[in-house]
Amino acid sequence: MFKEEMGEIKTFIEEEIEKLFRVPSSPQSVVFESMRYSMTAGGKRIRPILALKTYEIVSGKSYRDIVKFAVAIEMIHTYSLVHDDLPAMDNDDYRRGKPTNHRVYGDDMAILAGDGLLNLAYETMFGLIAGSEEKEKYTAASLEVASASGVNGMIGGQVVDILSDRKDMDSGTLDYIHKNKTSRLIESSIISGAILGGASGEEMESLKLYAESIGLMFQIRDDILDRIGSSEELGKTAGIDEINDKMTYVTVHGLEKSLEKATELCETARAALGRMKGKDTEFLEGLVDYLVCRKA
Amino acid sequence: MFKEEMGEIKTFIEEEIEKLFRVPSSPQSVVFESMRYSMTAGGKRIRPILALKTYEIVSGKSYRDIVKFAVAIEMIHTYSLVHDDLPAMDNDDYRRGKPTNHRVYGDDMAILAGDGLLNLAYETMFGLIAGSEEKEKYTAASLEVASASGVNGMIGGQVVDILSDRKDMDSGTLDYIHKNKTSRLIESSIISGAILGGASGEEMESLKLYAESIGLMFQIRDDILDRIGSSEELGKTAGIDEINDKMTYVTVHGLEKSLEKATELCETARAALGRMKGKDTEFLEGLVDYLVCRKA
Repeated sequence: MFKEEMGEIKTFIEEEIEKLFRVPSSPQSVVFESMRYSMTAGGKRIRPILALKTYEIVSGKSYRDIVKFAVAIEMIHTYSLVHDDLPAMDNDDYRRGKPTNHRVYGDDMAILAGDGLLNLAYETMFGLIAGSEEKEKYTAASLEVASASGVNGMIGGQVVDILSDRKDMDSGTLDYIHKNKTSRLIESSIISGAILGGASGEEMESLKLYAESIGLMFQIRDDILDRIGSSEELGKTAGIDEINDKMTYVTVHGLEKSLEKATELCETARAALGRMKGKDTEFLEGLVDYLVCRKA
Repeated sequence: MFKEEMGEIKTFIEEEIEKLFRVPSSPQSVVFESMRYSMTAGGKRIRPILALKTYEIVSGKSYRDIVKFAVAIEMIHTYSLVHDDLPAMDNDDYRRGKPTNHRVYGDDMAILAGDGLLNLAYETMFGLIAGSEEKEKYTAASLEVASASGVNGMIGGQVVDILSDRKDMDSGTLDYIHKNKTSRLIESSIISGAILGGASGEEMESLKLYAESIGLMFQIRDDILDRIGSSEELGKTAGIDEINDKMTYVTVHGLEKSLEKATELCETARAALGRMKGKDTEFLEGLVDYLVCRKA
């Protein structure tokens, strides 16, 4: 039931991406190809799904209303992957089982495609503000996402992640990286969906707690899977973190403690949803199970 | 008179930049340092100056009103320089007489600082929309700048510029590069200032024509200076375009034709300003002379 709904929304999002990322015949068409390559390279689409479903749960309206906003969030996520994979950064050759963007289009084009995706995400949001009667909601949701994505959020997390590859790191630093590099944009997807859906103050509090738990759970699971998964399941080189001598939740706390922490976060997430009186949070609960059980 | 006013506005903008780019004590402080390094590295500040003065001329109000918006435009310009200078792109060691960002902070941090500046520019704009009573004007101005900066604007121009380094190019392609890589954001600074100032349809037409002429003039002058200037005057390696076997307005059309074209554009720009009835366009006229006479 959950998996079917998840699949349906994912298909809906990917159809929208297909439409938005057609390659025009133009002098700069290669950058559109490069953007399209990474936007259509699969992935769980967890961020746009969270934005869409949170909007629907809170507002009672169709999630289709905010699909353009949700796809803009996915553009930001995708640009961050394209830049993170660069030789000057994490130097990854594979992502989701396919050669990384710079391996296909070159480092220069990958940098520009990433820039292009980030720019297009915000251009899309300005367009939504301009065209909507809910200007204040769209503005607040956009500001939330921009703040989560910037130097005090996702980019800040990546900065500290890069620095920490070079030296020892305490668990506070590791928490900072997880919180910012991965969790903030995931949280922001939920929060922006809630803003667009018109959540009450109390609902927002519950959803923020849920979002925080989901966000960290997501990163810990990634680190666990890197340790125990196979390359085939992961769609990238398994054990790359260890090969790169990279500190992760698992290398710092050990596998057992990491699994415990993931379970604890599940409980917090479920309890937070329990406080959403009168709302159908079944999908968001299903997501918790999915994240804990997921293979890749 | 013009130079004094230009200097005053430049100082005002740079004071604002100083305030906005203080380096906080934080785990990711190095990315703030890197962003600050490039934002305070000098330059003519032509884009924010154009936005501020156009706003003032059109609205009759103080240019100080929109300084945050103008600085956000400068962030977009600066991020594009930081990324363009990367070894994977133009591979420049000096910019404005100082080592380029990646030479000081490394390629990884330069990529992230660029991303951070682009993100912060739009985060600033969302904040302005949220906090202003002129939401529609700020939204339209932001959309204008985002559209000029993206894959159908500045990024698109850089893409074609990179491709053209690798093969022969006709003058149509060169025009495309000039138009998009350099002119669009300069034009957009004028147009967004005009939007924020509440320009009439007729005023907007004149300012667009002026902007188009100024934008192209600016690029042609850069190419001319690369040919005839010294490294000291330029603050970067003179003749780098030739060294890199890069096609420019000068290498395609020759020095004499390029100078002729620059003069022709001056006349168009002045004529456009002549149509701005009842507005004090003295500063914008002064800018035309300044651009034609400027050394770097």
